[in-house]
Amino acid sequence: MNPKERVKKPRMSRATLIAIAVLLCFTVVPSMAEEITISSDTEACLSCHRMVTPGIVGDWENSQHARMSPAKSLELPKRERRMSATDVAKNLRDNAVGCAECHMMNTDLHPEDSYAHNGFTIHTVVSPADCSTCHPTETEEYSDNKMSQAYANLMDNETYAVMVDNANGLDEFNGAGFHHIKADETSNADSCLACHGTVVKVTGTETRATMMGSMEFPTLSNWPNAGVGRINPDNTKGSCSSCHPRHQFSIEMARKPYTCAQCHKGPDVPAYKVYSVSVHGNIQKSVDKDWDYSAVPWVVGKDFTAPTCAACHSSEIVDESGNVIAKRTHRMNDRLPWRIFGLPYAHPQPIDADTSKIKNKVGLNLPTELTGEMVPEFLISKEEMAKRQQTMENVCSACHTQQWIDGHFDRLERSIETSNFMTLQATKILSTAWEEGLAQGANPFDEPLEIKWIEQWLFYGNSVRFATAMGGADYGVFADGRWTQTKNLREMADYLKFLRATKEAQDKK
Amino acid sequence: MNPKERVKKPRMSRATLIAIAVLLCFTVVPSMAEEITISSDTEACLSCHRMVTPGIVGDWENSQHARMSPAKSLELPKRERRMSATDVAKNLRDNAVGCAECHMMNTDLHPEDSYAHNGFTIHTVVSPADCSTCHPTETEEYSDNKMSQAYANLMDNETYAVMVDNANGLDEFNGAGFHHIKADETSNADSCLACHGTVVKVTGTETRATMMGSMEFPTLSNWPNAGVGRINPDNTKGSCSSCHPRHQFSIEMARKPYTCAQCHKGPDVPAYKVYSVSVHGNIQKSVDKDWDYSAVPWVVGKDFTAPTCAACHSSEIVDESGNVIAKRTHRMNDRLPWRIFGLPYAHPQPIDADTSKIKNKVGLNLPTELTGEMVPEFLISKEEMAKRQQTMENVCSACHTQQWIDGHFDRLERSIETSNFMTLQATKILSTAWEEGLAQGANPFDEPLEIKWIEQWLFYGNSVRFATAMGGADYGVFADGRWTQTKNLREMADYLKFLRATKEAQDKK
Amino acid sequence: MNPKERVKKPRMSRATLIAIAVLLCFTVVPSMAEEITISSDTEACLSCHRMVTPGIVGDWENSQHARMSPAKSLELPKRERRMSATDVAKNLRDNAVGCAECHMMNTDLHPEDSYAHNGFTIHTVVSPADCSTCHPTETEEYSDNKMSQAYANLMDNETYAVMVDNANGLDEFNGAGFHHIKADETSNADSCLACHGTVVKVTGTETRATMMGSMEFPTLSNWPNAGVGRINPDNTKGSCSSCHPRHQFSIEMARKPYTCAQCHKGPDVPAYKVYSVSVHGNIQKSVDKDWDYSAVPWVVGKDFTAPTCAACHSSEIVDESGNVIAKRTHRMNDRLPWRIFGLPYAHPQPIDADTSKIKNKVGLNLPTELTGEMVPEFLISKEEMAKRQQTMENVCSACHTQQWIDGHFDRLERSIETSNFMTLQATKILSTAWEEGLAQGANPFDEPLEIKWIEQWLFYGNSVRFATAMGGADYGVFADGRWTQTKNLREMADYLKFLRATKEAQDKK
Repeated sequence: MNPKERVKKPRMSRATLIAIAVLLCFTVVPSMAEEITISSDTEACLSCHRMVTPGIVGDWENSQHARMSPAKSLELPKRERRMSATDVAKNLRDNAVGCAECHMMNTDLHPEDSYAHNGFTIHTVVSPADCSTCHPTETEEYSDNKMSQAYANLMDNETYAVMVDNANGLDEFNGAGFHHIKADETSNADSCLACHGTVVKVTGTETRATMMGSMEFPTLSNWPNAGVGRINPDNTKGSCSSCHPRHQFSIEMARKPYTCAQCHKGPDVPAYKVYSVSVHGNIQKSVDKDWDYSAVPWVVGKDFTAPTCAACHSSEIVDESGNVIAKRTHRMNDRLPWRIFGLPYAHPQPIDADTSKIKNKVGLNLPTELTGEMVPEFLISKEEMAKRQQTMENVCSACHTQQWIDGHFDRLERSIETSNFMTLQATKILSTAWEEGLAQGANPFDEPLEIKWIEQWLFYGNSVRFATAMGGADYGVFADGRWTQTKNLREMADYLKFLRATKEAQDKK
Repeated sequence: MNPKERVKKPRMSRATLIAIAVLLCFTVVPSMAEEITISSDTEACLSCHRMVTPGIVGDWENSQHARMSPAKSLELPKRERRMSATDVAKNLRDNAVGCAECHMMNTDLHPEDSYAHNGFTIHTVVSPADCSTCHPTETEEYSDNKMSQAYANLMDNETYAVMVDNANGLDEFNGAGFHHIKADETSNADSCLACHGTVVKVTGTETRATMMGSMEFPTLSNWPNAGVGRINPDNTKGSCSSCHPRHQFSIEMARKPYTCAQCHKGPDVPAYKVYSVSVHGNIQKSVDKDWDYSAVPWVVGKDFTAPTCAACHSSEIVDESGNVIAKRTHRMNDRLPWRIFGLPYAHPQPIDADTSKIKNKVGLNLPTELTGEMVPEFLISKEEMAKRQQTMENVCSACHTQQWIDGHFDRLERSIETSNFMTLQATKILSTAWEEGLAQGANPFDEPLEIKWIEQWLFYGNSVRFATAMGGADYGVFADGRWTQTKNLREMADYLKFLRATKEAQDKK
Repeated sequence: MNPKERVKKPRMSRATLIAIAVLLCFTVVPSMAEEITISSDTEACLSCHRMVTPGIVGDWENSQHARMSPAKSLELPKRERRMSATDVAKNLRDNAVGCAECHMMNTDLHPEDSYAHNGFTIHTVVSPADCSTCHPTETEEYSDNKMSQAYANLMDNETYAVMVDNANGLDEFNGAGFHHIKADETSNADSCLACHGTVVKVTGTETRATMMGSMEFPTLSNWPNAGVGRINPDNTKGSCSSCHPRHQFSIEMARKPYTCAQCHKGPDVPAYKVYSVSVHGNIQKSVDKDWDYSAVPWVVGKDFTAPTCAACHSSEIVDESGNVIAKRTHRMNDRLPWRIFGLPYAHPQPIDADTSKIKNKVGLNLPTELTGEMVPEFLISKEEMAKRQQTMENVCSACHTQQWIDGHFDRLERSIETSNFMTLQATKILSTAWEEGLAQGANPFDEPLEIKWIEQWLFYGNSVRFATAMGGADYGVFADGRWTQTKNLREMADYLKFLRATKEAQDKK
């Protein structure tokens, strides 16, 4: 089936559609009429798209963008604004932030992906550069966030690139062993890069039959994608809609944990799972019907009574008197001393968001040696760690005493120590296998013993640490936690015995 | 403990109860009095059951059935009706749809399971034939839905029946190997048939002590059950309450994903898990408090802003002007070209809902050969696949552009290709073991290598495909996805080595 | 990083803070002023803590404790009260239950952990003895609940203590085998004891910099903790806030399943997972927005239409006429004949909440022999089992007929039988290995075959039984259910072969 041949059949005749579209062109949405105007360009978009894609139009109508102009926003006290720009171009100032405002913006910055569409020049992929028109602080912070570099951090790291290829490539069994077929771009886009982001480029143009007749569109590679480190056609990195899903772009959604759960669910990053069985997660699920997820700034104890992911890691939190407990940040490790996501060991946060630059002593792009030793020149200092921990402790202190907080962080440090120790033992077993020729170190990620080694840190070490960090007990024990960590290690030792026996038997022949 | 001897102790004396019952007989529920009448038969039921089973009475009072008569429904424009019958028998027309209306209906069609109960003739199990009185279109469509045939599709398929027996039967260890004890009916009913449906037949009668005194009831085999393919005492197939749980039978519940999650949760069918971490699932969980799940028809962008399972697979979707984007269907594969549930390979949807008729070249009731070749005479044509895909694309198009949609379906086709390829490699390893006498092909589902083969397609292949189809990234990678698919395949190859070594050692002795 | 050196930086100057605090001292919260007074001691607490820990103050303000005095509660009909005391000391009677009421109570019972704090004598850890001032019945019942003994039941049971140490301790690989390093207190507190409860004792005092200046506090061991069997500084056992999280302590939260999910999520106790895919869980998630979780007593069919964990196991359930269907209990096995949590076999509930007293024939603190035979002197009688089952059946009968109920409990008994049988087979394989010297019985929990044995009952046996008991089908089949039970057993038999082969090869050398 050639998807290019698929034609979307109009649900009404073309004449009827155009008649309706023309009619709607002169209509304004009544409920908004008193409050906020919609630009004529956006009206033109809506006149067709209300029929062509009614879902996203409805979604947008529910958004703050549809109810608020930049000018109105600028009238608010600074702390209550959701835009960080102090002014915007005149043509954007007084209207709702509609289709045209975003998709027809910065045309000069979109030389590759701008195209003519019903008399307008538009681009499909709205990029962080576009969003930065109203949200420059957020965009800048995010560009310094590891998430914005998630594509290169995975694919330009030679070690991880091999892992990606092993997971997404194919293995042809030939009776004795396997012939490996490299991972294709489609499978990568559908797998790791769904979260990390794909490379979206214009690869040509094509004519498509639409509800409004035949039209020409640019074709985009690896589309759709809303990965956090997406490489956009305008060469920017990231996708604001990863966490602020189209076309409502709401702060409510970004503050709810379901957004983070899209990528941070496990078994590699069991953050959402841990949260959902933590005391915090219990309170959130039990009583958040009484919370105000949309309040800016976010008043602890009033608008919400237990943190979500955003409360601890990103949101501006204030007390009822307006005192700032934590400043808003879109650089997600501002409040994090450690990177508990082991690679293969948990380590202090990297200095630079682009971690593909990191090189350890043996030339791998890893923040630690295989022995667990840190690679200090690429990692933040103890002083910086203390500073970031203090920032997080300020959030904790909104509800907890210092003794509580100290107890919590003592446990986190012990959890990092012990899980790193258990990773080291797994590394020792694997190294023994490599030394004895029982596994081929050349591709370090494809044999069962190697896969068990990876899972020791990527699944079980991470699970133990996330369980401690966010208080979800069973993920530290039976659910991929310490129990599984021990089991996997013991099984690795037995696997080594099996490999030795198999080799011995072969050597005898 | 003989459960037949258990006696439910009345919470009040019998005299008091009867006095209250008689009193209530002359009462009408005030809030409904103005709107809708309740038949005197139903009033009689309620008069006792308000005390005997207050929970389901309360549940029913919250239902549309309690607030709406068929006559009132027929006054509505056709599209807003929830019943598809154009008229019903006079005695049913003007009252709420209460206990009597359903449990005393079609007595002649229930010769086996009708019984005398306090002066009425009733039947316990309300069947699709009963529901079809008001909902004939839905019942007819459903009868052509694989789900209605789920009992036979599992138990009358020789291959699957062996799997069922292996899972639910017992294995007695005798020091060297196992003696298998066949699965009993109770265990099957409690396991696979909880979703697939049990065979419910009248097996006799028994006298039970009730709150209202001693009474006689028919005994039902394999009861309770609400599986989708239940074989009812009136010989109909299916259970409407699988998706419209008793006694609220609400469209709201059927439209929420938690209903589908009852059976489609994984690891074999991880549909709900995938959904819950997809963008769609995130939006639903984050903002569905503002949706109207009960609106008929369902207006995209207004009543809901992201699809649930029902939106894509079943519901009637319209735009704000009332244009139909997708017609309601209770034949769940009307919008599905592929059956991504591999058996063992993903394949075009079967033509007939009864898949136990399918036979491949070697006589197994499978839609594919073990080599992955399709069995075309039982599967829909490419043209039909294209038609069904177009129907689904119409749903997608409510929010997405054609390029987005094409990208999505290209990925799905690739995902099917690669996961089928990885199943084939597992099959090659297992075939090698069978050929070398390392596993006994006679029962193809009981040895560890065979179980790993099944999990290759049933868990990992399915997970990869569902992750693509519904956009839940990690189920395509680390959470039973491509990562696990590769790991399992590699472990199978090592298992083959282990079996060879064990056999060699035995042969030497 | 020494956490003791961390200093919480005030967000305002100390002078400003004190000025505000003094000012607030003379303020009353207006919305409550008409209704309920706050004691001057509590006002003093709030005056600072509104700034220091605004989150918990806000949380408390949302609580029933902030809106209700004991005196007001005593005016209510007994059944609508949430306190079971018939009177309280005069100083507590007329004010809201605030900070001072709980943290300054029973000072004489807190000789170890009381300390001077800004002119008051307070204790940090509020214990069940404190809560019993208003809630004596609940506290007494809970003290007879296995959960209150969860610390000793785990740590004073020699067999389980070895399991804990194996899970949380470290294993150093020495090239051939492992050197075991015993589990430290911090890891235990962070793992098993997060749910079971830690031993919290005063270990000294320390001076901390606070927002209000330098202050002295007692230091608490293994703090924070809210485990169900926490050993408190006043030597009481348990933590009411395990299920009634601080500082809202709401009945709504305790009635929602997310509270129980904190510890009962799996894979060892998959109660919440099973519930969430059961019909009950589906209904709860789909329509509980229309329920009243705070009503006391809880009217089935009106306040809720499907049970949560609390409805079946703990809450007072009545019908609309006020007839009691189930009495409130905080002894969670009042309605449970069986303990389906296998140790290693499912067994009748133990007589005594302190299960560490149980001894089987071979001297292990287990309720069954390794062969599955029960240890009857420590377990409830058949009569008591029948009585408790009847209590639960009364709950079921609020919505279900006796035949439905009988069918359900027949399945449960069969599920217990078959899963115990499958555990026995695993025990036979392990015993064979022990007898043949292939595993070291000395530490019965550290080798892969032993770990697989434990998972046979702790994960798969439990999963099968919970799936039956609460109706979540796939947890009885593919999701750690019968399928996995069979697979694991078959793999154990192959593992035995592998161990034999390895030993044979070693013996030859």
